[in-house]
Amino acid sequence: MTEHSMVKQERAARTRDALIRSAAEVFDREGFPVASLAAISSLAGVSNGALHFHFANKAALADAVEEAALTRLLAVTDAVLPLGASRVQLLVDVTHGIAGALRGDVVLRAGFELSGEVSRVPRVDLREQWRRWVEETLEQAAAGGELRPGVAAGDAGGAVVAATVGFEVLGARDAEWLSASTVTRFWGLLLPTLVPAALLADLEVGGTHPL
Amino acid sequence: MTEHSMVKQERAARTRDALIRSAAEVFDREGFPVASLAAISSLAGVSNGALHFHFANKAALADAVEEAALTRLLAVTDAVLPLGASRVQLLVDVTHGIAGALRGDVVLRAGFELSGEVSRVPRVDLREQWRRWVEETLEQAAAGGELRPGVAAGDAGGAVVAATVGFEVLGARDAEWLSASTVTRFWGLLLPTLVPAALLADLEVGGTHPL
Repeated sequence: MTEHSMVKQERAARTRDALIRSAAEVFDREGFPVASLAAISSLAGVSNGALHFHFANKAALADAVEEAALTRLLAVTDAVLPLGASRVQLLVDVTHGIAGALRGDVVLRAGFELSGEVSRVPRVDLREQWRRWVEETLEQAAAGGELRPGVAAGDAGGAVVAATVGFEVLGARDAEWLSASTVTRFWGLLLPTLVPAALLADLEVGGTHPL
Repeated sequence: MTEHSMVKQERAARTRDALIRSAAEVFDREGFPVASLAAISSLAGVSNGALHFHFANKAALADAVEEAALTRLLAVTDAVLPLGASRVQLLVDVTHGIAGALRGDVVLRAGFELSGEVSRVPRVDLREQWRRWVEETLEQAAAGGELRPGVAAGDAGGAVVAATVGFEVLGARDAEWLSASTVTRFWGLLLPTLVPAALLADLEVGGTHPL
């Protein structure tokens, strides 16, 4: 590849990223159905023609926002754990990480919001991906003896998924729902019913490290 | 008032109700921004002119859907309690009642959905009304000694509001989230951490009576 074509390719990738970010901002602010391609290309600082070179239509942009959001979600959930590390602590840490990311990262936020958009079929359903990860993690916690006897992983997963989707949706109008304090108080309430008393003291409801 | 004008007035009220219900159905199916007045008047079986006689525009229809939804919400929350009745049991019963109503009542469902619609300012914010009711009820529960020492009513309220809004949002794609079983399992998990052990045995996680 010549130097010239590499420069062109890099510039194209930067333009594509800028369009995805601008689309996320306009979707987040105005909603997907109302968002106009003109507003998106203008915010990205490119022409309408450049937008159409990268994306055939608004649905293609929404697909790209969802894919970029999934990459960000996986960056938070795909932690490498030391052998024997607590799955429940991982779940607490990851919910803190996602709440923080939803506060600051418009691409992740728009990706989650597109999950609930009735006027289109999601390509990557972020809320569904999140549900699967929470349920798998709680099943691993149960298998590792981290859940109280009598607590079904599925029941715990339902409560955690519903509450975190609630934080995400309510957080769009009032960011307090996505604060570290809200997430910490949620776990402070839920953990005593979720894990055996002997494990409770070792868990940090505020999260153990920034994700 | 003459009999003729009474008949006319009743017919007008029926048409207005039919338009509100049709608007709720179209908002619920297609989303508020995409919904067309033509689809709403056609579903209600009235002319576009009749729609405009009652509602100046789509925003006015959304306001009317929210008001009708609030009436339905209040019909569930405004239970008259016997002296000394458990506020926590009321909360359990009302969440069952609302989940059931969200499954079957498109006006209530569309009213809640309009709460999260970024393209308009809600006139009656149903999720906010729900939040206030849950928090007041839990404060009354705390005042009546129904919460475990160390459990803050505000923390409990945050968890209950977030989870129920999560059920509502996720239920739009998968009605299982609004099933009696989902709500029962949520309370089965949460109640042991919420109320003193001595009160737990008297509480029915499945609800005590149809609301």
